[in-house]
Amino acid sequence: MARLMQLAELLDAELRMPPAEPLPEITGVASAKTASKSDLVFAEDANAFSDALASQAAAVIVAAKIAPEGAAGKPLLVVKQPRLAFALAARELRGAQDATGVHPTAIIDGSVVRGRRISVGAYAVIEAGVKIGDDTIIGAGAIVGAGVELGRGCHIYPRVVIYSGVELGERVVVHAGAVLGADGFGYVRDHASGEYTQFPQQGRLILEDDVEIGANTTVDRGALEETRLAKGVKIDNLVHIGHNVQVGKHVVIAAQTGISGSSVIGDYAIVGGQVGIGDHAVVGENVILGSGSGVLTHKKVKGPGVVFWGRPARPLQDYLKELATLSRLTRRRKEESLPVEAASKSRPRKSAARKATASKPVTDKTGKQE
Amino acid sequence: MARLMQLAELLDAELRMPPAEPLPEITGVASAKTASKSDLVFAEDANAFSDALASQAAAVIVAAKIAPEGAAGKPLLVVKQPRLAFALAARELRGAQDATGVHPTAIIDGSVVRGRRISVGAYAVIEAGVKIGDDTIIGAGAIVGAGVELGRGCHIYPRVVIYSGVELGERVVVHAGAVLGADGFGYVRDHASGEYTQFPQQGRLILEDDVEIGANTTVDRGALEETRLAKGVKIDNLVHIGHNVQVGKHVVIAAQTGISGSSVIGDYAIVGGQVGIGDHAVVGENVILGSGSGVLTHKKVKGPGVVFWGRPARPLQDYLKELATLSRLTRRRKEESLPVEAASKSRPRKSAARKATASKPVTDKTGKQE
Amino acid sequence: MARLMQLAELLDAELRMPPAEPLPEITGVASAKTASKSDLVFAEDANAFSDALASQAAAVIVAAKIAPEGAAGKPLLVVKQPRLAFALAARELRGAQDATGVHPTAIIDGSVVRGRRISVGAYAVIEAGVKIGDDTIIGAGAIVGAGVELGRGCHIYPRVVIYSGVELGERVVVHAGAVLGADGFGYVRDHASGEYTQFPQQGRLILEDDVEIGANTTVDRGALEETRLAKGVKIDNLVHIGHNVQVGKHVVIAAQTGISGSSVIGDYAIVGGQVGIGDHAVVGENVILGSGSGVLTHKKVKGPGVVFWGRPARPLQDYLKELATLSRLTRRRKEESLPVEAASKSRPRKSAARKATASKPVTDKTGKQE
Repeated sequence: MARLMQLAELLDAELRMPPAEPLPEITGVASAKTASKSDLVFAEDANAFSDALASQAAAVIVAAKIAPEGAAGKPLLVVKQPRLAFALAARELRGAQDATGVHPTAIIDGSVVRGRRISVGAYAVIEAGVKIGDDTIIGAGAIVGAGVELGRGCHIYPRVVIYSGVELGERVVVHAGAVLGADGFGYVRDHASGEYTQFPQQGRLILEDDVEIGANTTVDRGALEETRLAKGVKIDNLVHIGHNVQVGKHVVIAAQTGISGSSVIGDYAIVGGQVGIGDHAVVGENVILGSGSGVLTHKKVKGPGVVFWGRPARPLQDYLKELATLSRLTRRRKEESLPVEAASKSRPRKSAARKATASKPVTDKTGKQE
Repeated sequence: MARLMQLAELLDAELRMPPAEPLPEITGVASAKTASKSDLVFAEDANAFSDALASQAAAVIVAAKIAPEGAAGKPLLVVKQPRLAFALAARELRGAQDATGVHPTAIIDGSVVRGRRISVGAYAVIEAGVKIGDDTIIGAGAIVGAGVELGRGCHIYPRVVIYSGVELGERVVVHAGAVLGADGFGYVRDHASGEYTQFPQQGRLILEDDVEIGANTTVDRGALEETRLAKGVKIDNLVHIGHNVQVGKHVVIAAQTGISGSSVIGDYAIVGGQVGIGDHAVVGENVILGSGSGVLTHKKVKGPGVVFWGRPARPLQDYLKELATLSRLTRRRKEESLPVEAASKSRPRKSAARKATASKPVTDKTGKQE
Repeated sequence: MARLMQLAELLDAELRMPPAEPLPEITGVASAKTASKSDLVFAEDANAFSDALASQAAAVIVAAKIAPEGAAGKPLLVVKQPRLAFALAARELRGAQDATGVHPTAIIDGSVVRGRRISVGAYAVIEAGVKIGDDTIIGAGAIVGAGVELGRGCHIYPRVVIYSGVELGERVVVHAGAVLGADGFGYVRDHASGEYTQFPQQGRLILEDDVEIGANTTVDRGALEETRLAKGVKIDNLVHIGHNVQVGKHVVIAAQTGISGSSVIGDYAIVGGQVGIGDHAVVGENVILGSGSGVLTHKKVKGPGVVFWGRPARPLQDYLKELATLSRLTRRRKEESLPVEAASKSRPRKSAARKATASKPVTDKTGKQE
């Protein structure tokens, strides 16, 4: 059956063809700007729809409320959620990667249980007792520690390191350079000497089905118990997850966020980039933490659907009011010609700001912000 | 001698046995919740002690002030610092990893000086002139650059990269993916063209005895002189230490902190996670920098035992007062029904906050914080 | 011709020799403190010049305005920009690394186009269709994905991973552990189930000539279009560049900064460390973003030569005034003996701050800041 019709069925879409036009071939997806004659594009609003119709694209995935009655200039796939349908179409068109088998230079211990149709890249090292599920792909140079279990359909990119004591569910994706299961940062200080001894880091790390981990992200093992990422969690690059953290299902966490030990992130929470969550904190279900926000040690932030911002994180309304208050008070002081307080020693000076950047001339003009 | 008695001696603990009970076998440590019959647990307070006695554990490490007079339901190891004793017991029970020798695929230059009982993993690459101390372990895929010196008992985890010009003391631990000795970020800008040329990064990097480095952390070499981490420093994952930084002994630095070039961190300082320290700054001995705090370029933060918070970092008391002041002023404006200042263009708008997260409906309810 | 004279010519410097002194041998560069008799040093001010003359150094690169009339105790290279001249001299003295050829264990697909005088390290993996420019160096364990193009004179350090779809210009430097071209963090949420599907990440990543990338930094591929770093961009360690970001020429970005998807950074901008830039933001040409500052999603920050600070980022003057205002109001409340507002639940408490750090006694004294 023609690709377009297959996709219409898969996406539960209504296919509207221009009169007397043959079904176009579909080979991939693209943006309207770069689409070729066999690409699918999508449109979520009227402007995007115009661009789509003006493009070279073979067909357009579009929301019912935007699509014209009857035919348009191109074949349409009319759906409820065009962006989602586009993503699903892309995945379908990409198809499954063919299994490439085990590279002759991959070192796989004799006790490893190999699933069917697996792929293991050059110079990968798989230690004793590992279990590799069907259709799993392990990239070049990846290191999988003793006893690790990988479910079916996982994709471990090159040069990932998985310490022993880690268990991955099905369809887990781990991008290059990520480190799973390293020792948590736990030390005990000797009151007498001031020196530190490592607290045992012997717990497990569990990643449930459909978890995705970004490049160079680190997720530590539990100290005595486990660290767990529940099903469907998506984590960006350079994120740090500390020991004994529990991340709920379908949580998304953007780049460079850090979650300290023993914190709990509730199901469906959305965590922005560069967020800092202290240890033993609780982020409730469906909470939205704006980028750069911070939750302190032992704090609880709750409120399904509420957006929190700032450090410490508080509801966006409050954060905006505080910014407005400070801004207004600052302007009022200026208008009252109050002398600017001698900068406290803790504040940056303009000269310090200049030194802080590469040596070059700085012209101090008034900046424009839009 | 029975394990429990050996441990009592090692930990300088008083062993109190329940009457007529044989010495239990001890094989490991655990939390009370997951302890088996041959595990050791510990308790720092009355609740933890109850849990410990109710568990399956073989014996309990407990502080003198909590332990009952005479016998309890289980063997007790009575100590001054139970958490520390537990950590030391864990290390003792773990025992030393047996040397595994040099993997046939490890590439070791002929000029490398190999200590006794070393372990080098598959596909590791050790370049010319390297010295490997006795009992040192180098993981699979690790790369050790020319002339690097590794002291005795080091543990270099898989896929670590150590550039040439680096020297590690004894018992240094480096977790997977860390990069030691890369070029510092030094550039000179040509005033005429605005373009940059790299300032020479040819200095050394020294890690003294008992330093521990987390996964994917980067510690740069000095530009013309050295970068040095003094004995006992413990560094978490995804931390960045810039060129020419001097970190004092027994300093701990939590995840994702960044210390810019030429800064000095005093002995025994405690640095939280996501802290930012500008270049040429000084953090005094025994200072405590709370997570997310910031020290500006060329600033000095001093005060043994003082906790600093915020950006720029100031003593916690002052930080709390400022937060309280802003909060109170904001509430007062609200009560006086002053119109909220039209948000300045630099502030986030609710719509922007929504756009900033994955596309989904947001219900703006009042959040609850505890 | 003697080295010193060659350098004088290269640096467009005036060579001033002490009377009757032979030309010294020059083998390298150093700081005044550590210089040997064949090292070159530099001085940007009178103090540094004294130190330089007092050192063992063979010769001193110095600015015309500091250099004495006539001769000094050592040979002088008198220039306009001593620091830049020093950097250029260092590079010249370092010389080009000799090509080491292709290590026998490097796996290079038969279809790879190899330039002349390339070096490929042990256990590197170069996939089908890759093009390697003349004089390019690829380090041990590096992984270069199918179809990647590397221009001339690139230096890829050990254990870098370059996904397919990436193109590097000439003289691009990529430090150990960096990951180029991984999937961007794009997901579509299903309104019905709340679950996420990956939005296609199939775009390219282009690094133009003279781009330098720090250790463990991640630069993602475009989703449907491209991510691009223009010529001369210098990026530090542990930086995250999201999909579809466009970074202008000769931009410098310090450690641990994160730039979210589709943002644009203008030519010659200077971005500090730990800066957070939201998606679809615009940072104008020649803007200076201080360390730790933040630009919100969809915001534009413009003003050539203007220094911006804080979150949200605003011109330094405004930032300083706000800090001064808050500080003054806080002090005034204290003086008026107004009771400190009961700490709102979102603020850190002293006990929380203590818990947040390793278990140890904290003496709460007044800290000193300079």
